[in-house]
Amino acid sequence: MHNFDQTISTLSDISQSELHHFGIEGIPFPSVPELREFVDICRSVLFPGYYGKNVVTGGLQYHIGVGVEHLYEKISKQFMAGIAFAQGDDFVEREVVRDAAKRRAKRFVEALPELREILATDVVAMYRNDPAANNLGEVILCYPGMHAITNYRIAHAIYQLDVPLIPRMITELAHSETGIDIHPGATIGPSFAIDHGTGVVIGATAILGHHVTLYQGVTLGAKNFPQEPDGSLVKGIARHPILGNHVVVYANATILGRVHIGDNTTIGGNLWVTHDVPAGTKLFYNAK
Amino acid sequence: MHNFDQTISTLSDISQSELHHFGIEGIPFPSVPELREFVDICRSVLFPGYYGKNVVTGGLQYHIGVGVEHLYEKISKQFMAGIAFAQGDDFVEREVVRDAAKRRAKRFVEALPELREILATDVVAMYRNDPAANNLGEVILCYPGMHAITNYRIAHAIYQLDVPLIPRMITELAHSETGIDIHPGATIGPSFAIDHGTGVVIGATAILGHHVTLYQGVTLGAKNFPQEPDGSLVKGIARHPILGNHVVVYANATILGRVHIGDNTTIGGNLWVTHDVPAGTKLFYNAK
Amino acid sequence: MHNFDQTISTLSDISQSELHHFGIEGIPFPSVPELREFVDICRSVLFPGYYGKNVVTGGLQYHIGVGVEHLYEKISKQFMAGIAFAQGDDFVEREVVRDAAKRRAKRFVEALPELREILATDVVAMYRNDPAANNLGEVILCYPGMHAITNYRIAHAIYQLDVPLIPRMITELAHSETGIDIHPGATIGPSFAIDHGTGVVIGATAILGHHVTLYQGVTLGAKNFPQEPDGSLVKGIARHPILGNHVVVYANATILGRVHIGDNTTIGGNLWVTHDVPAGTKLFYNAK
Amino acid sequence: MHNFDQTISTLSDISQSELHHFGIEGIPFPSVPELREFVDICRSVLFPGYYGKNVVTGGLQYHIGVGVEHLYEKISKQFMAGIAFAQGDDFVEREVVRDAAKRRAKRFVEALPELREILATDVVAMYRNDPAANNLGEVILCYPGMHAITNYRIAHAIYQLDVPLIPRMITELAHSETGIDIHPGATIGPSFAIDHGTGVVIGATAILGHHVTLYQGVTLGAKNFPQEPDGSLVKGIARHPILGNHVVVYANATILGRVHIGDNTTIGGNLWVTHDVPAGTKLFYNAK
Amino acid sequence: MHNFDQTISTLSDISQSELHHFGIEGIPFPSVPELREFVDICRSVLFPGYYGKNVVTGGLQYHIGVGVEHLYEKISKQFMAGIAFAQGDDFVEREVVRDAAKRRAKRFVEALPELREILATDVVAMYRNDPAANNLGEVILCYPGMHAITNYRIAHAIYQLDVPLIPRMITELAHSETGIDIHPGATIGPSFAIDHGTGVVIGATAILGHHVTLYQGVTLGAKNFPQEPDGSLVKGIARHPILGNHVVVYANATILGRVHIGDNTTIGGNLWVTHDVPAGTKLFYNAK
Amino acid sequence: MHNFDQTISTLSDISQSELHHFGIEGIPFPSVPELREFVDICRSVLFPGYYGKNVVTGGLQYHIGVGVEHLYEKISKQFMAGIAFAQGDDFVEREVVRDAAKRRAKRFVEALPELREILATDVVAMYRNDPAANNLGEVILCYPGMHAITNYRIAHAIYQLDVPLIPRMITELAHSETGIDIHPGATIGPSFAIDHGTGVVIGATAILGHHVTLYQGVTLGAKNFPQEPDGSLVKGIARHPILGNHVVVYANATILGRVHIGDNTTIGGNLWVTHDVPAGTKLFYNAK
Repeated sequence: MHNFDQTISTLSDISQSELHHFGIEGIPFPSVPELREFVDICRSVLFPGYYGKNVVTGGLQYHIGVGVEHLYEKISKQFMAGIAFAQGDDFVEREVVRDAAKRRAKRFVEALPELREILATDVVAMYRNDPAANNLGEVILCYPGMHAITNYRIAHAIYQLDVPLIPRMITELAHSETGIDIHPGATIGPSFAIDHGTGVVIGATAILGHHVTLYQGVTLGAKNFPQEPDGSLVKGIARHPILGNHVVVYANATILGRVHIGDNTTIGGNLWVTHDVPAGTKLFYNAK
Repeated sequence: MHNFDQTISTLSDISQSELHHFGIEGIPFPSVPELREFVDICRSVLFPGYYGKNVVTGGLQYHIGVGVEHLYEKISKQFMAGIAFAQGDDFVEREVVRDAAKRRAKRFVEALPELREILATDVVAMYRNDPAANNLGEVILCYPGMHAITNYRIAHAIYQLDVPLIPRMITELAHSETGIDIHPGATIGPSFAIDHGTGVVIGATAILGHHVTLYQGVTLGAKNFPQEPDGSLVKGIARHPILGNHVVVYANATILGRVHIGDNTTIGGNLWVTHDVPAGTKLFYNAK
Repeated sequence: MHNFDQTISTLSDISQSELHHFGIEGIPFPSVPELREFVDICRSVLFPGYYGKNVVTGGLQYHIGVGVEHLYEKISKQFMAGIAFAQGDDFVEREVVRDAAKRRAKRFVEALPELREILATDVVAMYRNDPAANNLGEVILCYPGMHAITNYRIAHAIYQLDVPLIPRMITELAHSETGIDIHPGATIGPSFAIDHGTGVVIGATAILGHHVTLYQGVTLGAKNFPQEPDGSLVKGIARHPILGNHVVVYANATILGRVHIGDNTTIGGNLWVTHDVPAGTKLFYNAK
Repeated sequence: MHNFDQTISTLSDISQSELHHFGIEGIPFPSVPELREFVDICRSVLFPGYYGKNVVTGGLQYHIGVGVEHLYEKISKQFMAGIAFAQGDDFVEREVVRDAAKRRAKRFVEALPELREILATDVVAMYRNDPAANNLGEVILCYPGMHAITNYRIAHAIYQLDVPLIPRMITELAHSETGIDIHPGATIGPSFAIDHGTGVVIGATAILGHHVTLYQGVTLGAKNFPQEPDGSLVKGIARHPILGNHVVVYANATILGRVHIGDNTTIGGNLWVTHDVPAGTKLFYNAK
Repeated sequence: MHNFDQTISTLSDISQSELHHFGIEGIPFPSVPELREFVDICRSVLFPGYYGKNVVTGGLQYHIGVGVEHLYEKISKQFMAGIAFAQGDDFVEREVVRDAAKRRAKRFVEALPELREILATDVVAMYRNDPAANNLGEVILCYPGMHAITNYRIAHAIYQLDVPLIPRMITELAHSETGIDIHPGATIGPSFAIDHGTGVVIGATAILGHHVTLYQGVTLGAKNFPQEPDGSLVKGIARHPILGNHVVVYANATILGRVHIGDNTTIGGNLWVTHDVPAGTKLFYNAK
Repeated sequence: MHNFDQTISTLSDISQSELHHFGIEGIPFPSVPELREFVDICRSVLFPGYYGKNVVTGGLQYHIGVGVEHLYEKISKQFMAGIAFAQGDDFVEREVVRDAAKRRAKRFVEALPELREILATDVVAMYRNDPAANNLGEVILCYPGMHAITNYRIAHAIYQLDVPLIPRMITELAHSETGIDIHPGATIGPSFAIDHGTGVVIGATAILGHHVTLYQGVTLGAKNFPQEPDGSLVKGIARHPILGNHVVVYANATILGRVHIGDNTTIGGNLWVTHDVPAGTKLFYNAK
């Protein structure tokens, strides 16, 4: 018969490892399934009838009313979880954390109409951008770009409420499902479109204007990471590109550093860009 | 206490938004989980014993008989859903849609043996192509390329039956799981292989011969999108590459536009190709 | 009424196809959901409190004790499944396979403390590497690179126990979730970091030193596949790169063949490398 | 290896058995899980906050609105199922059945406020009747009598709409959960109470006034079953007891046949009653 | 913080208690959910179209073929579990137990057609017996008596194969769902009917002829339990009643001991019978 | 199209009904599924290896350790729920309720060893009592009497901690599953046995000595309910029987009121007892 007592004892000796986390009683832990469900409810409220249960004409307000209550309840708990997780050993009091979480959850709910407005511009942009798209509904239902942008816009709204951890978890959900990795800190204008999308990376301090279109494999990344005198990385520096309005970046292009890409610019596929590009430029690879 | 009545009321005011969908009573809505289950049943019928329940020698016909009935039932409903979704406000009559859906579902079922034949060539191609593969079963079970090709071939068969929306949803399932994005409209010959596969994109009008092999990150895309006089994109133009037989395209190469890549051609990794390539060419990057 | 008897009969005629698998009674079949659960339990044991149920201070040993028993039971079955699958028609005796599986499962469990030690170095490396990371916990919870490396290290430990099929299935799980494709046969030193990660490919015979960092889209692949006289591929050749210590490879770079990349080397983004690179080199693309 | 072909073939020979049912395409089959869910939604609408999700003050109307839509949708399908099942081979047309089902489902929904009113009297009666009850909520949450009466009242409302099969399935759900077997055809006035309840049987043509209380094991049954000349049972005869108002029947008493039990009567435990009992009687067993 | 180490330690000290069971590796444990699923599959095979998935005309043989394979697989495992459980410390060898289990499972499958034949007589008897029944299908779908008899007949067939424990678990499933408690050892002829049924108890050595009908609360029990000289109960004595053919026992009657109730006898409700009753008797209570 | 706005509006008008419950934010609601899971975990801790996962020799302490933590966590929440539910509008403060709940949950956990001791006597009593029982394990696994007694003993321990509502919900779980209705307030000595059990009722103030055995349908109930001057029932009166040690009550006997049944007494089946019975009496029905 096997006997694993020695192995179990070693693994239980936490003096040897930082890779554990002790929960605070009465405080939920950040939960991927809960956040996935939260985002699903957001979708069912923002795009009623496309996600979640069928919706009938007369029933819309009830559907949305229940959805809003439900997502408020879920996200309050996850905000608590995120705040407590970030406080770690500095955690003070359950009721204080709970109140902070609820205040921000309320503000998130109140921001939903605005969220829907900007997402509507994205749907139209995605539709206009793809000759294969037959109608807006198809974009809402099937397009991974739309999926990732929705997660990003929800996460960004939460990021602006200063909730730690949760926004990143929400964009990672979309990253896993679509291969599109948008940092919730990025600032992205309306009418944003991503086609195919696998491999897209948008960094935390990137700024994108309106009517920007990205194709698969595009990186808007950092060029280098300045270090503190002690060798650790300097945090919080603006280190990702700024794209103007009506910018198109084709497949697998890489734009690195705090460069400015002017309005109405096209960056060709596979390009490697680390300098500013003036407005109106069409930059292309010399194909072989 | 929070009160979200104002927010709910705004979100329920559909005069301000096109982002909703009212169901037609008695007509199912296109469903990702249903389609996922449908594809799983297809797999269990096409590769019995590899997917779904264990299969015993004497029980094969029963297993397949039940699988076929089951997938017919599921796909009939989803075909109804897709047809009604595409008709939108032009929707006329439930029984007409139902009959159309069932006729096509029947034809799909009858095409299964043919589907299995071509998939068998893909399995062999994938196996031959990878020195790390130990047997055909490993390819069927583990290879994301095989997974994506199976979804594509099922979706393409449905695409040829003129069912809207559903084929795209089926290839997007594989896109999400494998990072391989094959449009169901693409035409792909037998003995097709994809290795690793993350980031592969194959456009709607691409045509691939037999014995084509693609590596991760390969794009077979459009070069540009001609516009109608009113600025909208022209739909339905042949705009993606044609690859001959025995063509290999290495990692991260990009082939754009209605170019012809001749038989027995090799396109090296990271290349950017927007012109025709004659048969027999070995095109490589000048490595640094 | 439809009648599919002809189709069913054709599909049941296995004389026409190799795409089926008959189970051996009393031997489990390799199962993706079982392996996913196995990896989840490993995570809950290696990072207690981050995955699985909440853990309280006094309860750690019980939590780990149950987790270890549970994963031992699950992996024993999957090892049986993998060994029997590989034996195929050469399968001899259930009890022999069972014993072999259990011996290896026992050795896997005993290797868990070592696994945790090396994973701890990876967590720290990932944290140090990303200016956006706030603490180690965030890396453990959210970072797809960490997710993929954990699967790889588990799979590699199993690979070293000569269990067929199962290691590959475990890394494919991570491949599907993160777009990061690491072959379980690769040898990777401690303090390994992957950022963003979508599209990363690391081949079966690659060897990486300690403190290696990879960005999204990096391929460490084979350059060509020597053939046997009969046209089949030669198996088992060392055909992937060797990277030294403190090597950084930026986004979308491709390194092919059995080349040596020396210590303290930096390979710039989008580069195509098929030759050795001496230690200390900083190789960069000439940006346009 | 076992071979069950002969057994399977015998079991598939339906010429030998009536014990099978072929579905009508597009018509759902009566479903116990669907009906269980339907009754649960009814409970969540009739007793909001006690069943189903938590309800907040401002959210009540949304909760009920969604519940009502949801139960309407579910019960329409089950009404279709019941009507088609009863028609059997006389089934004519899907759309006719669908319309009939929807009309009745609509009438059921409109009867919900009335249902709630009468159930409110039952809750109060159960509470008053039990010295161990602490509040109305406890009765709603825990009392099997309340559970069975709710199912009965729902089923009876459906029975009055002439929907076949479904009412009986709904009371059988409660029978299985509580041991209380009330035929949906019985007529029962308000303020009805059952305590403990296991073994209670109330026949199809029984009539109970208001403020009736029954204890466990009470049977209100038929005394005999007149036969037609051909030996089959005569259907539809009034064959069960009539109980007046304010009648109490103690544990395990049996009342059989179309007898009249007058107002304000008490029937003692274990009694066997097959004759009329005048109003105001206190009938008791001579205990040993 | 709580600390339960002392409690856990006490509960883990098995020297103080017999209430634990250590599993034998590779031997399944008797499982209520598995047996519930097994009985459900039996129902779907014996009454195709009434239970489990919808069945279409042409699909019957496939449906039954898969059902039979599936139930064989499940019951083989549970037979193993039951045999090993009964052997306890005398357990010898896994493969021996496995073979014994599979032989009996095979015989059970082969007995299914016979089971269906006798169940068909029960369905007809239940239908004839109840003036409220509208058709055979209603009896199959809704009647708890039919439910309990089906479980009993399945369990009895297994009991006759000398499988320990499992038959009792199967009748207890029905006991819990219907309140009808039939010991799997009882011998019951065809055309058996139970109406309402809550509280019915039929002992292990009872023998019932054909066309027997029981109502709710009927006990066919033992009168006394002879003891061995050491005070323990004598096992295996015939101690329950024998009922002839065409016997009816009304609600809550109790028949105890090895008494003979002759053919064509009627036992009235609430009666207490401990002596033989000659054929043709109509025994009734003197109602008050 | 249907429009249910009027119905919804009526149902939402809570001024007309008391049948609703508004949750307190951050306080869980009493949950049947949570309590069912709680009782299952208790079983897996009290009878390790019989319920829940398989247990191996060396793993017992881990199994029990995790079980104890898990049930503590679950029952703390349900105690909160029960306390808050009982306070209703008098609810004061979340943290006070939480602390009260946790203190009692801790005491419940500490009582588990004692619970196991008394349950062990019940198992033996049930085994000794039934000539059909083959071993203790069979009693633990299959006997509904054992199931109901376990729920009762757990519920009674909680009842003694002054937690409202929850104990009753736990005994009602068993009532639904077994037809045995034991009020959690009843006092029952060790070595208690119930055979068959359907229809057994034991009232809130009943007191049973050790070695008491009950058969199906036995009621230990109240004889009458004294009223307050205002017509409401007097609460809290001792109104149920007291049974001495070594008392046996056969099937369907009814004992009502605060009567004393002396030691070593046997009450025959179907009897109706409302007076004291001296020790050593054998009371039997005069069978016809």
